[in-house]
Amino acid sequence: MFGRFKYNDNVFYGEVNGDIVISKEGPFAEYELSELEVLPPSTPSKVVCVGLNYHDHAAELGLSVPEEPILFIKPPSAVIGHHGKIMYPRISKRVDFEAELAIIIGKKCKNIAYERAYDVIAGFTCFNDITARDLQRKDGQWTRSKSFDTFAPVGPFIAPLEDFDPEDASIISRVNGKVMQDSNISNLIFDVPYLIEFISNVMTLEAGDIIATGTPPGVGELHVEDIVEIKIEGIGTLVNEVA
Amino acid sequence: MFGRFKYNDNVFYGEVNGDIVISKEGPFAEYELSELEVLPPSTPSKVVCVGLNYHDHAAELGLSVPEEPILFIKPPSAVIGHHGKIMYPRISKRVDFEAELAIIIGKKCKNIAYERAYDVIAGFTCFNDITARDLQRKDGQWTRSKSFDTFAPVGPFIAPLEDFDPEDASIISRVNGKVMQDSNISNLIFDVPYLIEFISNVMTLEAGDIIATGTPPGVGELHVEDIVEIKIEGIGTLVNEVA
Repeated sequence: MFGRFKYNDNVFYGEVNGDIVISKEGPFAEYELSELEVLPPSTPSKVVCVGLNYHDHAAELGLSVPEEPILFIKPPSAVIGHHGKIMYPRISKRVDFEAELAIIIGKKCKNIAYERAYDVIAGFTCFNDITARDLQRKDGQWTRSKSFDTFAPVGPFIAPLEDFDPEDASIISRVNGKVMQDSNISNLIFDVPYLIEFISNVMTLEAGDIIATGTPPGVGELHVEDIVEIKIEGIGTLVNEVA
Repeated sequence: MFGRFKYNDNVFYGEVNGDIVISKEGPFAEYELSELEVLPPSTPSKVVCVGLNYHDHAAELGLSVPEEPILFIKPPSAVIGHHGKIMYPRISKRVDFEAELAIIIGKKCKNIAYERAYDVIAGFTCFNDITARDLQRKDGQWTRSKSFDTFAPVGPFIAPLEDFDPEDASIISRVNGKVMQDSNISNLIFDVPYLIEFISNVMTLEAGDIIATGTPPGVGELHVEDIVEIKIEGIGTLVNEVA
């Protein structure tokens, strides 16, 4: 498990072992996790997100399974990390959480075949596809409602393939401790290698780019001061407060 | 007028005076424009685009004027410069050009009021919002159809405010020399300061970010080997070939 951290003005990648973080840069250094600021685990050039992608979510909405993934993009300016604050925009009356598994790209790539998809993946983390639901309905296009600053919480850390099974892991969201979504990534309609192939056939992916893989049933509303958690088995828990 | 150029392996910003380019970086150096590779004039963290935004285009489509701008985002991986080649994707049967005025952001900013919009603008350039029309219709969401590599030609150079009137300039597209679109940016439904205010209320804009302001009537189809030109009065002509 590794992450990106800040200590005073020093930003670095480190390996996480329980409560200890070992810097992967410069001279050997060991920190207590509690003395570090946890940053977003990558600095993406783009965040590519996938619409409806869980069998159980499609069933919940009474929708048929889509033929191909529906894509949208969040800008880098929307990204925040673990414990970063989600800012509720004044112009929305309805802001929702959406628990998602995120893929972190490990190297620049294009036109990657299904069978080679894992070669370009650095690892996996938790993602919260924050959405101003009222603006999403009004616009038809999803971009504005999903692109506000702080609307892309990601983290806390990246689990490499050795530590994570991308075909079977529970995914849960909680608001103020109450479980709101509870599914398993085995319910993905388009699985991880499929998404890598599909998206890299459209656009070049860069190291650090984030692919958010869609959300299971049970999405719901957030209010100011809520604490929202996204927990994925084998990765950890991403915690953010609404401000 | 200024642009970004490459000479051997050296990338620099330069001021364009007719056929002469004067480097703005390092020791004084003067080049012939013809000996330089013209790069995209900025390296954006995001390209924010606006849907239907010309009165005459709305009339052409028989649509009412939208209440607010509809936004979508192209990734940085889609950006090419003057004379860069537009790559026709195998999975599309219908790729269109769309002539647009682009705003280049000059500094990091957020929540900019209408009256202060010009303070954050570096200048203006030409943009071609290349779109796989068949995939746009199929997906409903516009992101995939507009995000293929090479689908965001921009340039050739940036005209600062001193040289360009953002309320009155002709905008033309030509395919193989034939005029396809011929309008004026005075037909914009949401003008330049309105867009800066609207978009910066959603997301932080970074220096170099590109805002594409929508296209006038007359969009149409491209074929392999076509030469497509976007010409805006006071800026110049962006030329790209389809490959």
